[in-house]
Amino acid sequence: TNPVYTGLPTTIFEVMSRLAIEHGSINLGQGFPDVDGPEDVRRMAAEALIAGPNQYPPMMGVPALRQAVAAANKRFYDLDVDWKTEVLVTSGATEALADIITSLIEPGDEIVLIEPLYDCYLPLVRRAGGIAKLVRVTPPHWKLDADELAAAFSDKTKAVLLNNPMNPAAKVFTREELGLIAELCVRFDAYAICDEVYEHIIFDDREHIPLMTLPGMRERTVRIGSAGKTFSLTGWKVGYVTATPRLLDPIAKAHQFTTFTTPAALQTAVAYGLAKEDAYYAGLAGDLAKKRDRLASGLARLGFGVVPCDGTYFVTADIAPLGLAASDVEVCQRMTVEAGVTAVPVSAFYDGNAPSTFVRFCFSKQDSILDSALERLATWI
Amino acid sequence: TNPVYTGLPTTIFEVMSRLAIEHGSINLGQGFPDVDGPEDVRRMAAEALIAGPNQYPPMMGVPALRQAVAAANKRFYDLDVDWKTEVLVTSGATEALADIITSLIEPGDEIVLIEPLYDCYLPLVRRAGGIAKLVRVTPPHWKLDADELAAAFSDKTKAVLLNNPMNPAAKVFTREELGLIAELCVRFDAYAICDEVYEHIIFDDREHIPLMTLPGMRERTVRIGSAGKTFSLTGWKVGYVTATPRLLDPIAKAHQFTTFTTPAALQTAVAYGLAKEDAYYAGLAGDLAKKRDRLASGLARLGFGVVPCDGTYFVTADIAPLGLAASDVEVCQRMTVEAGVTAVPVSAFYDGNAPSTFVRFCFSKQDSILDSALERLATWI
Ligand SMILES: CSCCC(=O)C(=O)O
Ligand SMILES: CSCCC(=O)C(=O)O
Repeated sequence: TNPVYTGLPTTIFEVMSRLAIEHGSINLGQGFPDVDGPEDVRRMAAEALIAGPNQYPPMMGVPALRQAVAAANKRFYDLDVDWKTEVLVTSGATEALADIITSLIEPGDEIVLIEPLYDCYLPLVRRAGGIAKLVRVTPPHWKLDADELAAAFSDKTKAVLLNNPMNPAAKVFTREELGLIAELCVRFDAYAICDEVYEHIIFDDREHIPLMTLPGMRERTVRIGSAGKTFSLTGWKVGYVTATPRLLDPIAKAHQFTTFTTPAALQTAVAYGLAKEDAYYAGLAGDLAKKRDRLASGLARLGFGVVPCDGTYFVTADIAPLGLAASDVEVCQRMTVEAGVTAVPVSAFYDGNAPSTFVRFCFSKQDSILDSALERLATWI
Repeated sequence: TNPVYTGLPTTIFEVMSRLAIEHGSINLGQGFPDVDGPEDVRRMAAEALIAGPNQYPPMMGVPALRQAVAAANKRFYDLDVDWKTEVLVTSGATEALADIITSLIEPGDEIVLIEPLYDCYLPLVRRAGGIAKLVRVTPPHWKLDADELAAAFSDKTKAVLLNNPMNPAAKVFTREELGLIAELCVRFDAYAICDEVYEHIIFDDREHIPLMTLPGMRERTVRIGSAGKTFSLTGWKVGYVTATPRLLDPIAKAHQFTTFTTPAALQTAVAYGLAKEDAYYAGLAGDLAKKRDRLASGLARLGFGVVPCDGTYFVTADIAPLGLAASDVEVCQRMTVEAGVTAVPVSAFYDGNAPSTFVRFCFSKQDSILDSALERLATWI
């Protein structure tokens, strides 16, 4: 069997979720909301399942959703996108990443990635024969060092892979940082693969700036969005890719031989959802910002060193001040078993040599659950 | 961009479907039923979407579906399967094939495949760095030559990839043929990857025999099934893989980084569907056998050379007797534009040097549609 996959560990999210279930623990590990997204969106999908047809939709996606993705690019970022040649629907953002990396990367190509890394990035790059050039940001400031970033680029750089807003750092890249990345992409003629699934989950009046909108980036950027995060329906696995036709064409070919299509009923409902009024999007981010505050202030009261959080579902907390004399991995296990609260170790997001006293909590949960988790942690500490 | 995907043509099914839409043609090309599968199955999925949760299901699949797949293996083939370690749910059989080929094949491995080939097989093998060893069967008899098959195996053979029942040949492999394949797999210590999505679409009291049930094959076979074909819901993209834990483990890792999960509502409904009484399965095959007869006898009356069909959605017809002096590709185009009936050229299923006078018609359509297609063809001829 292929060594890229044989012996690969099960993803940390799944491992911690299984452990949480086993111990009846409150699961603030894997990132998903515990209240489903809009009922009208779900109802629309349900009706489409009944009405049909439930046969293969077009390989590129249902036209209504491709049009809605193009419209959202215009509405939120003033990007002009041709839905017929520049939008592809995939079975989730993970499939989008698999398709993109498979089709754009050739063996020997260098890919610049910023640690902490979402778990599928490195295996996908390695499967494609790509060589990962890692630059890291670390808690509590997650500062991107311009020189380190520049040093990671070379004539062999095929692409940079950027997660913005960034999981687990909850970092939203500034225009200045993005400018730096864009400049390097242009200088080294590299693509940018932008995983922007948290584009609408951003707090305190910060602004999500797609790298694609920066000078010189429109034609070299592949932008990924996801209904899972935008509509609190992580199990739907509906993602979308925006890219110039020259890049989208090979990506669509990889998609054609990976899943081929995505259920039409879900696509139709997501198309409807994307057109929701501004209040929906404001409510999504506003509700989550309140949950962040609830959990973050609670953790701070308990003595955790809480790291700033500008977006996503996650807040990172330093366990060093608790004086437990254990690594983040051990603490996450003990917290699950002893306290009945599950988090994810931040070291799992680094390819070795990681900061070892930080854990990630997911706050996209009901207030009562967040409160119970804090109570359990208070008792435990 | 990676040359495996760049410049790759759009799949023949999508190309012909687009052409059919453009010309208002009756689409007997791409294989899908024009009547959706069981309403109770669809209703169950619709209710699950409303009731939720709509968040990430377990990476391996919803337990109810994994149990149902194990139970179906027992019920139909007397295979004892442990649902916890031997069943994986994927986003369709195409994703299953992508996961399996990616995780089992290493660069330089040889894979034995039998032409005619379903369109994703060769690109997936090549993407994995595998070397395709092609053996062919040809219409009208689709006979597998034992010596040619044996000659394709060598010490470098990692796996054989078998589609049984076979699209587009509508061939159901006999126990004798399967015995030959099994013997070679055992002798050369090769895996068998068995795409059996048409397992329940088999006619005239023929029997589907999973290669996995043959002596020596239980531990070396990966068996793929699909809700799309079994419940006439091709757009749902719910597939399932059965394999021994040692093989399933790396496949699950590839799945983890390809789509990660499949919508839970659809999985739950498919689990319910798989438990349907024997009458459902008999009805599915019986209805399609009648449609085969309707189309096949009509084509024969019009002068096509109709090739025997033992299963699947497809009947192959020889156009040579029509005396059109054109290749199968040209005839499919002309038939779409001039007659308003779309078929797929059988040569598209061969990697060059193909028989050139055969076209594939899909008969999983309403009787009135089949009749109209025959009328249009009669006028055209
Ligand atoms: C693939 S499950 C992981 C969900 C998630 O995005 C996270 O927890 O970071
Ligand atoms: C991926 S669309 C092809 C459908 C099908 O199975 C066929 O037409 O052979």
